Amino acid sequence: MNELRIIDLIRETFASQKADLLDDVSFIKRGEGYIVFKTDMLVKSTDIPRGMTLRQASRKAVVACLSDMLCKGADLWGFMISLGIPKLLATEENVTLLSLGLMDASVQYEIPILGGDVNEADDLVIAVAVAGYARRMVRRDGAKVGDRLVATGPFGLTALGLGHLLGGKPLPRSLAASSLSSVYEPSPRKGLCKLLIDGGVVNASMDSSDGLAMTLNEMSRQSGREMVMTSLPAEPAFLRACSSAGLDALDLVLHGGEEYEAVLAVPEAKLPTAISLAAEAGARLYPFGIVRRGKARVLYSPPGSSPATEIPADGWVHLQ
Amino acid sequence: MNELRIIDLIRETFASQKADLLDDVSFIKRGEGYIVFKTDMLVKSTDIPRGMTLRQASRKAVVACLSDMLCKGADLWGFMISLGIPKLLATEENVTLLSLGLMDASVQYEIPILGGDVNEADDLVIAVAVAGYARRMVRRDGAKVGDRLVATGPFGLTALGLGHLLGGKPLPRSLAASSLSSVYEPSPRKGLCKLLIDGGVVNASMDSSDGLAMTLNEMSRQSGREMVMTSLPAEPAFLRACSSAGLDALDLVLHGGEEYEAVLAVPEAKLPTAISLAAEAGARLYPFGIVRRGKARVLYSPPGSSPATEIPADGWVHLQ
Repeated sequence: MNELRIIDLIRETFASQKADLLDDVSFIKRGEGYIVFKTDMLVKSTDIPRGMTLRQASRKAVVACLSDMLCKGADLWGFMISLGIPKLLATEENVTLLSLGLMDASVQYEIPILGGDVNEADDLVIAVAVAGYARRMVRRDGAKVGDRLVATGPFGLTALGLGHLLGGKPLPRSLAASSLSSVYEPSPRKGLCKLLIDGGVVNASMDSSDGLAMTLNEMSRQSGREMVMTSLPAEPAFLRACSSAGLDALDLVLHGGEEYEAVLAVPEAKLPTAISLAAEAGARLYPFGIVRRGKARVLYSPPGSSPATEIPADGWVHLQ
Repeated sequence: MNELRIIDLIRETFASQKADLLDDVSFIKRGEGYIVFKTDMLVKSTDIPRGMTLRQASRKAVVACLSDMLCKGADLWGFMISLGIPKLLATEENVTLLSLGLMDASVQYEIPILGGDVNEADDLVIAVAVAGYARRMVRRDGAKVGDRLVATGPFGLTALGLGHLLGGKPLPRSLAASSLSSVYEPSPRKGLCKLLIDGGVVNASMDSSDGLAMTLNEMSRQSGREMVMTSLPAEPAFLRACSSAGLDALDLVLHGGEEYEAVLAVPEAKLPTAISLAAEAGARLYPFGIVRRGKARVLYSPPGSSPATEIPADGWVHLQ
């Protein structure tokens, strides 16, 4: 049984509670805004690729978790760690590296550690819980007809890096450093989504951690709208390098994972405001599609090409 | 390197942040009160004894975590789960059992599930994060000279049950059911500590999860006071059964773990109020000692016996 079926089963068990388990960030209404929480787990046997240090791994465990909070526009209050560690790994050096990685994330994202718990386990497991506060609740299901699809950063690099590290696939030299650092030291943008969400220009937001195809299909399904990609949210230099190396840029953009970039639905009339808000924060937005009336599905339909290609929900699913 | 040294190393790394990592519940001041958080992890290879079902295990994972919140007098807002599961264990039946256990805890403690995340791992790992709200902040370090030491329930049964399940030790028949259920289905009291803490009769509170000896030593160290046990927080029937069976009741009371009972420091003048508040809630308190001026240590000194015995911080420590 894979991850998605497991989540469904848990949802079914809790159906009588009308538990809201559709987003991976939890909102609790409190005063004018929302207290927000998120948990995530990094597991050595499946989540730590070749060449990643323990310091990078523990930093990434925290960053992966707070990335979801950032894409909801939350201020970060703090994080907690539950560490499971095999006896053989529990050396002074390894624990120092793990601690330093936690500290790296704490310093970079200005988020204090609040506590945690340490256990023996057969696998190295770093479970992270992050808490914070958001003025507005923006979810995955809010995309409206006419909205523009916008990414907060380019896609494709992590798929390239992971394909190389896990599958021995070729890595164009010009993209080697950026694609490996996107895997080893992902750095979701700090204040960007908060600026956009507090500015009232975002109808839906989702952090892409299982790839763009999965992310768009989930937003499409929950919003009940058709989503049409008219271009790829990627850098021209990336597309050129892929083309020279005979790599399938569309596949890399769609089927990566762990990008830790937000996919946003922005009302068309507010796109210029969104772009200038981002520019003030020193960031660029990547508009790449539109939300249409129609059945919930994802299409790729660049100008001049027809018919459109349907993009299924293929991506990273645990326990396949 | 054991659990305590690992925690120290993480504390050292974060020393520059003056991170407050002395309690295992985190408090964030907000308005008149505090938002409180807690994470905890249950690991199959070390935390699930013989005979415990997966349903009991996932229930216990949640209960262990919220027990710490209850002993701080917190209202429970909700919990989140990070599940790591080996592929071979991820069957429909097992996941249903795990879900039902989460639901059992949710129903019994009236705490909704807020979300979570599912991963593949080499060990079954259930990491739980609980969030809530407390009107006052009561910590481990607040015990004052003259305070009475009070337990919210009797000690000894879990040590008896675990000793039997893990070490094949004898189990007196009259205590078999209660000691096994204390291991398989621990049930910390719901509103008791909240009533006492909101009632202003508690100076310090700590959940006993690693045994009474560990708990008292930690409270003594953090409060900088000597703690003297003058009796055992245990039921007379338990003491009689141990005596008949030739079991060392003192050892069982001191060196268990996972009792999920709070140890409180209550100002002597407020003890009658504490006892009547508890009685109104249908609960009993177990006064068993006093807090004295002196160096931070724990003594056992029942009336009529001398000299007092020093109780070292022996108990359950992971990764020994």
